[in-house]
Amino acid sequence: MGEAVRVLDVALGERSYPICIGSGLLDEPSHLIRGLGRKRAVVVTNETVAPLYLERVLAGLRANGVEVSEVVLPDGEAYKDWPTLNRIFDALLAKMAERSTTLIALGGGVVGDMTGFAAATYQRGVPFIQIPTTLLSQVDSSVGGKTAINHPLGKNMIGAFYQPKLVLADISTLNSLPDRELKAGLAEVIKYGLIRDLPFFEWLEGNLDRLLAREPEALADAVERSCRNKAEVVAADETEQGERATLNLGHTFGHAIETGLGYGVWLHGEAVAAGTIMAAELSRILGWLTEDDVARIQRLFVRAGLPVRGAPLGADRYLSLMRHDKKVADGQLRLVLLKAIGRATISAEADEAQIRAAIERCGG
Amino acid sequence: MGEAVRVLDVALGERSYPICIGSGLLDEPSHLIRGLGRKRAVVVTNETVAPLYLERVLAGLRANGVEVSEVVLPDGEAYKDWPTLNRIFDALLAKMAERSTTLIALGGGVVGDMTGFAAATYQRGVPFIQIPTTLLSQVDSSVGGKTAINHPLGKNMIGAFYQPKLVLADISTLNSLPDRELKAGLAEVIKYGLIRDLPFFEWLEGNLDRLLAREPEALADAVERSCRNKAEVVAADETEQGERATLNLGHTFGHAIETGLGYGVWLHGEAVAAGTIMAAELSRILGWLTEDDVARIQRLFVRAGLPVRGAPLGADRYLSLMRHDKKVADGQLRLVLLKAIGRATISAEADEAQIRAAIERCGG
Repeated sequence: MGEAVRVLDVALGERSYPICIGSGLLDEPSHLIRGLGRKRAVVVTNETVAPLYLERVLAGLRANGVEVSEVVLPDGEAYKDWPTLNRIFDALLAKMAERSTTLIALGGGVVGDMTGFAAATYQRGVPFIQIPTTLLSQVDSSVGGKTAINHPLGKNMIGAFYQPKLVLADISTLNSLPDRELKAGLAEVIKYGLIRDLPFFEWLEGNLDRLLAREPEALADAVERSCRNKAEVVAADETEQGERATLNLGHTFGHAIETGLGYGVWLHGEAVAAGTIMAAELSRILGWLTEDDVARIQRLFVRAGLPVRGAPLGADRYLSLMRHDKKVADGQLRLVLLKAIGRATISAEADEAQIRAAIERCGG
Repeated sequence: MGEAVRVLDVALGERSYPICIGSGLLDEPSHLIRGLGRKRAVVVTNETVAPLYLERVLAGLRANGVEVSEVVLPDGEAYKDWPTLNRIFDALLAKMAERSTTLIALGGGVVGDMTGFAAATYQRGVPFIQIPTTLLSQVDSSVGGKTAINHPLGKNMIGAFYQPKLVLADISTLNSLPDRELKAGLAEVIKYGLIRDLPFFEWLEGNLDRLLAREPEALADAVERSCRNKAEVVAADETEQGERATLNLGHTFGHAIETGLGYGVWLHGEAVAAGTIMAAELSRILGWLTEDDVARIQRLFVRAGLPVRGAPLGADRYLSLMRHDKKVADGQLRLVLLKAIGRATISAEADEAQIRAAIERCGG
């Protein structure tokens, strides 16, 4: 894997789009300009990211004749709600943004999800570009068109499938990322290895220290491999009728932790890590993984500085919160579990006692 | 045109769906049952429609083994807003509605637009059925997948294109419709004649009195012909890149009246009627219609009991409100105008002085 810009395609027919991955892309507005249709844009970002990258993006666009303005939101999952979303709509209407105005999300998963949902619904849909600046959003949330806000009764409960026109992942933005967020992002990177790519899992076992040391080449490799896995899954199942649900490994348990503690106490990736261990433990209880498999997964998460035990909410509370999850069908809790490291399955086989046992064995 | 159920298809590939038109369809749950996938549903209606039809719909579903509950919203365009939409989400989450739960809109355009938007966005999309109970919603808003809520700065500014699985138009529900609403619905019926169907316009000139007298056969004919026109336009241009915009004849002027006076003071169809006369007058100023054409259109609206003069907001206010409309591109106001009776066009040809003159000549 080389030094230049790497371009992957998300193959979705007329909704196909490229993912550009590389270092210093924010300083090369040509990529962004190619992704813009008409020359009006609104950049949506947050108070943390704005001082770091906003001026650079605005300047690059203006130098190319784009009429651009910005919306700066407060930072954090706690603001992934309707009142904050409405600040985007207020700004768009105040600036008289049109159906051809492109919204550009500059930031992490929360900014991307909210900007994407605003783009999906403002005037019933305007063009949309993702510039993810966190590892989590570069490897996961910016690709695949899931957009949403939270509802007090459930995470990501209100949203849309809405594909961007372009994803621009500048690896150098990861240099400004706090350690804790880098590690949280690694939870989703490891996930791809676990659900469908054993060689990648093995590569991660060999290269985790390089990622933690933020070696650009290693980060670009990990982002590219993750996006490639995600793009393949999304191209096969855009609206999550089947295989795409395997991307939610650890998420049903993890969402219970996030909702149970209140959004933002644990980072999403941290909750996914602990949730993934619960899913692995449940897979062991069902006889699919060995104790050694679970220990091996646990070891990689521990090396990545991620939690391997859940928040102690009690199994009843977990089960109640999990039943509000979107992966429920006909009242039956369907979970993403592992048949082996590198092979996920969606299953309703586990009974309540088994799920309860897995939660309790993992500190829940 | 006969007595039986008339079925039209909206041809949208994998999103195609039937429109069933007939008398007494609410008493034949078989149509509804065929449109339901899984056997869970939530009926959304309002305080006016619920006492008239809700129990009948619920009973029909329950008799066929459907697990169904209901959400009753306050009535009126003033409630087509986020807090009211959120009442639907609250209810869906409280009832743990799943991705396979069908939302059924029972009511007029406001109920349909809001239920449709809730269906488009709850868990990123659940199935959706329209049972329109007003003439306006039977001939227009229930067909074509436009869903939305209002924003204080603009009507229908937040929404989605989201197609129903089935539209069930029971003509007998029009018997309970207040005269004023029947007439408001006729504005959209006449619109189809004006934009693309001169023979239908002539049929309306000959049969308007039968419609005002609510003759079931005449109403079914008018609803069928209107839906057929709409289905053809929507099939050709689902997301309003071109021809579909002609369905907005009179709407840019009309939305200015609705927003300027505050939602709900004029009925939507009333505002469209006055707005259509403004569009016709502007078409005359541009040399496309004759004075006789404008007078002929005006005559039909007057016979239908519809306003042919706008609310006196002043031309400046109209122009300012119209610039917030969704039909603006690159700052240019694009209007639906008439090249002839039966032939609409989308045009940016009119300059501000001409638009102003049309508004002023029509009492705006």
